[in-house]
Amino acid sequence: MANIAIMGFGTVGAGVAKVLEMNGASMAARLEEPLHLKYILDVRDFDQSPYADRMIKDFSIIENDPEVEVVVETIGGKGVALDFTRRCLQAGKHVVTSNKELVATHGKELLAIARARNVNYLFEASVGGGIPLLRPMYECLAANEIEEIIGILNGTTNYILTRMVQDEIAFSTALQEAQGMGYAERDPAADVEGLDACRKICILSDLAFGREVLPDEVSTEGISGIHLKDVDIAAAAGYRIKLLGRAIRLPEGRQTAYVAPHLVREDCPLAGVDGVFNAVMLRGNAVGDVLFYGRGAGDLPTASAVLSDVMDAIAHRSKRRNLDWSQSAQMVSASELPMSWYLRGAFSAGDARAVCGPVTLLGDGAVITPPMTAAKAREAAEKLGAAAMLHVL
Amino acid sequence: MANIAIMGFGTVGAGVAKVLEMNGASMAARLEEPLHLKYILDVRDFDQSPYADRMIKDFSIIENDPEVEVVVETIGGKGVALDFTRRCLQAGKHVVTSNKELVATHGKELLAIARARNVNYLFEASVGGGIPLLRPMYECLAANEIEEIIGILNGTTNYILTRMVQDEIAFSTALQEAQGMGYAERDPAADVEGLDACRKICILSDLAFGREVLPDEVSTEGISGIHLKDVDIAAAAGYRIKLLGRAIRLPEGRQTAYVAPHLVREDCPLAGVDGVFNAVMLRGNAVGDVLFYGRGAGDLPTASAVLSDVMDAIAHRSKRRNLDWSQSAQMVSASELPMSWYLRGAFSAGDARAVCGPVTLLGDGAVITPPMTAAKAREAAEKLGAAAMLHVL
Repeated sequence: MANIAIMGFGTVGAGVAKVLEMNGASMAARLEEPLHLKYILDVRDFDQSPYADRMIKDFSIIENDPEVEVVVETIGGKGVALDFTRRCLQAGKHVVTSNKELVATHGKELLAIARARNVNYLFEASVGGGIPLLRPMYECLAANEIEEIIGILNGTTNYILTRMVQDEIAFSTALQEAQGMGYAERDPAADVEGLDACRKICILSDLAFGREVLPDEVSTEGISGIHLKDVDIAAAAGYRIKLLGRAIRLPEGRQTAYVAPHLVREDCPLAGVDGVFNAVMLRGNAVGDVLFYGRGAGDLPTASAVLSDVMDAIAHRSKRRNLDWSQSAQMVSASELPMSWYLRGAFSAGDARAVCGPVTLLGDGAVITPPMTAAKAREAAEKLGAAAMLHVL
Repeated sequence: MANIAIMGFGTVGAGVAKVLEMNGASMAARLEEPLHLKYILDVRDFDQSPYADRMIKDFSIIENDPEVEVVVETIGGKGVALDFTRRCLQAGKHVVTSNKELVATHGKELLAIARARNVNYLFEASVGGGIPLLRPMYECLAANEIEEIIGILNGTTNYILTRMVQDEIAFSTALQEAQGMGYAERDPAADVEGLDACRKICILSDLAFGREVLPDEVSTEGISGIHLKDVDIAAAAGYRIKLLGRAIRLPEGRQTAYVAPHLVREDCPLAGVDGVFNAVMLRGNAVGDVLFYGRGAGDLPTASAVLSDVMDAIAHRSKRRNLDWSQSAQMVSASELPMSWYLRGAFSAGDARAVCGPVTLLGDGAVITPPMTAAKAREAAEKLGAAAMLHVL
């Protein structure tokens, strides 16, 4: 029997308890041993909960109980979650988390403690909710060099962009609606300004390239500046606007990562990813492009990913997963890479060609430029008096 | 150092050698030990090959060499491949294969030998080429009960159907073109009659539900009877026609599986999977729908999957993967499940309603019926004198 504890009984933590109850029998059959939820740590009172008998408020009970093998951290943030995770790992317990902020900022340190104590620190649920992503990448694509990762990593912003294009409503209206549906937080900055996507592309990049990339190193642009007019022009020309996180392997051990809204051609599989769904496309040097798609959030999908890690930790009690990004990345700013740009303004096709070279006309005073750096594109936008400038995938 | 051998130096076998050369260094770093390709077994002569020094024709050299830990079987079929696989497993060697026919028909027996000898028999490459599918299903979704699997599992037929809809050419023309491009075999029956997809849905079902389903038990219909007219009517009404393999968990321990062309609504992610690409949608009771997409064939993508299994076998030398479908499935014929049907013929909407109940009109004398069993639908089609009858997803 394997004893587990949950720290933080919010949406995801409660989802973990629920899925454990729902599917515990089949999980035990697969593991060839039962899972027992011994403790749930939360500062709040849950006297009426069916789990009242195992609710605790004192972390040291978990820390000091040698029977607890795996601890699920669904507290979130990097305050107490960091302290408790460190102490659990130091106490020789496997830790499984959905906490993307903690993994993105302190993953290197926590993996080093896990390595020293020969336990696992696993975080499949931190990116893409229930979609199998991290383990397929480091296990199933282990025979590849990953060359590029492109992801729709935030369901809230994707919901807003989908509503803008499908119902021709402005960003602010779509945001209010997303808040009403419970998809967006009251303070939506972490989602709409791209920070959530940034943390997730950091984790994907860390694992794919084996080098630490911190959120501060990743240029991040959200969707609050997207005009309905550009959504419409793009749609009429066969493009969708999507907030993408990208990480790219560059020659000579260098790499880049950034988050920004992009025009995506309709025939790209990412263009059809609508609503709160997430999708990640990986390009491997042997496998080519593979895409993973599903619900990027929600209590049960995220709990599904947490519990697959719990099962993995138990199945690999004696054999630690070899996850590591202890080296620093040689980051190149994404603005140095030549890319195509969408520019819209009151300029003529002739002006655009004179300034940018052979552009593609989209109509309504919008063009797509040939590849150029962000600096060149900004210069061109200024010369042309462009009112909008966006990345093109 | 881990010594491996390849049996069968055709497209996939040569791809394995190539990817090993391309990515061997990074694979060794991840595994923390190098991989060494010690033998390549093939009956043909490869004197001019850069691998000439390790080409052998006598299987017993591999069988009797205790240094060979992992054997890659890329011979195909169930003749000599079956014999050699049995003997490798019995000799205590891990076997990794892309041979879907062998896994679908003899997987149960081979897994039993592997279990008895405490080695792995792994076959990620047998379904979906390079797309990570099987391991994400049994590992990352291990906390789920899989309820349904729907897959576009054969690239050749998907290429043909894509050409039919995009370029309005008939089945026979599209098939000839696929043969010209090297996507379809000279004898295309295994692809176009659905047998290849059938083997793959068997393997997915075996793993997802843990019970053996043999190809003979799976009703299989290919695409050679698809008329361009129906492709056109479907497209105009917002549907694509796709050859799908489906496996469904039913109440009381029962299950079903079948392969048939289906009308798929354009807003379903499977509808946008075009050309030689494959995609599989899994429905888990916690995670909901997740979709995996990528190249379902090709030397390097398939080799990528083979080598991820090789790495897994080595990383799990001492801990066998717990794969098992030794119990028999309680199969229900798919024809007993109520489904919606596409019917086309020279009948009126009123006739269709009188016979089938509240139908959806697609135009051009085609309707979609409310859910009914295949027997009822065939009866209705006969009464109406329908010229075409297809599943609707």
